[in-house]
Amino acid sequence: MGHTPHVFVSAPWDGAEISVGEASRHHLEKVLRRNDGDISYTDGAGRVGSGAYRAGRIARGEESEVARPTPWLTFAVAAPTSTNRARMVVEKLAEVGVDRLLWLQSAWSQGRPPRPSRTTSWAVAALEQSRGAWLLEVAGAIALRDVAATAAGVIVADANGDPFDGALSFSSGGQLTVVVGPEGGFAPDEVPAGLPRLSLGGQILRIETAAIVASGIVTAQRHHRGAAS
Amino acid sequence: MGHTPHVFVSAPWDGAEISVGEASRHHLEKVLRRNDGDISYTDGAGRVGSGAYRAGRIARGEESEVARPTPWLTFAVAAPTSTNRARMVVEKLAEVGVDRLLWLQSAWSQGRPPRPSRTTSWAVAALEQSRGAWLLEVAGAIALRDVAATAAGVIVADANGDPFDGALSFSSGGQLTVVVGPEGGFAPDEVPAGLPRLSLGGQILRIETAAIVASGIVTAQRHHRGAAS
Repeated sequence: MGHTPHVFVSAPWDGAEISVGEASRHHLEKVLRRNDGDISYTDGAGRVGSGAYRAGRIARGEESEVARPTPWLTFAVAAPTSTNRARMVVEKLAEVGVDRLLWLQSAWSQGRPPRPSRTTSWAVAALEQSRGAWLLEVAGAIALRDVAATAAGVIVADANGDPFDGALSFSSGGQLTVVVGPEGGFAPDEVPAGLPRLSLGGQILRIETAAIVASGIVTAQRHHRGAAS
Repeated sequence: MGHTPHVFVSAPWDGAEISVGEASRHHLEKVLRRNDGDISYTDGAGRVGSGAYRAGRIARGEESEVARPTPWLTFAVAAPTSTNRARMVVEKLAEVGVDRLLWLQSAWSQGRPPRPSRTTSWAVAALEQSRGAWLLEVAGAIALRDVAATAAGVIVADANGDPFDGALSFSSGGQLTVVVGPEGGFAPDEVPAGLPRLSLGGQILRIETAAIVASGIVTAQRHHRGAAS
């Protein structure tokens, strides 16, 4: 429980004072009821600082860099059918520390990606709440074959796959990409041959549940391997 | 994607026809727009059937029993501060197949357990949506020392614990109990000595995120061990 609020302030940071965005200012002053006082801030790209807040501006103090954890984690997720469930995907993946979320374009997908302005505000709120230094990047839509062609270390969450556990390979050039398909599954020719399929258990999980569980597993493994090395 | 709706009908089932509750009827007729046709149904205690629906009643057909997976999984979770987040805990734990949810009473907890009538309707909706046969039981509030005294195989999710992974012990008399404390942590004397503490990664996760991730891990392990034995 940090009692010092943590806010996102987009780069570049020039001068001795920097401005807080409208949404963060509203949250600080109307929700947290902090009109001035100590604050921590980040540019969402690894830079963090401690400063003093007053009236929408931060007097900059001590600043440092937070290294990005490796491997980089990308999640390619079919958009759920409701905005609430899409929001859950963005917020929870941001909270556990996934680096990038791609909305997956898929033959049997029934949802549409939410607007970028909304996903950015959800990701920023989650970054502030979880006191992170790296903002979740959200992009797409992108087809699975294009994910497989451009991303490294791709694995597909699949109820009929092998157990999704300690066997995860983290040796793919510092990247891991987890694909969570639509609830109706993939069309027969949609999954490129040779992609590993890993199971989260026997049930057919909803998209947001599968994404949250898988992201928790891989970020925990990343943390523990990082701590052990 | 089952296209046959799945509904909860509380026991006992007497006679050739049984009645669907108001909430399930509303969902069937107003949301799914099914006024009649094939239906599957469950009593939430392992019994499932296939029948024909019409006007709030089911003409019973073939019925069978679904064995309860072992070990039984109990989650003792501090109530989040918002109803939305409490609902997420109930829905997602029901969806992945946790057996019992206890609201944890804790010194530094800031939330209050939602009303039982609400938790039941959330659990029923998740059971129907995920086509399950076992309804999540929700009870509490209960203090951690009482959980430890009455439940078997208790482990505590703790950011400073050992990695929460393949090392999980499933040998505790067919029961596993996972404790997810409040975001402020436990008071110094609140955790009985000797309880294993396992970490989901380095971050301080929100209650609902920690609960969903941990439930996904343990239900997946239960599934894979069940499939292997």
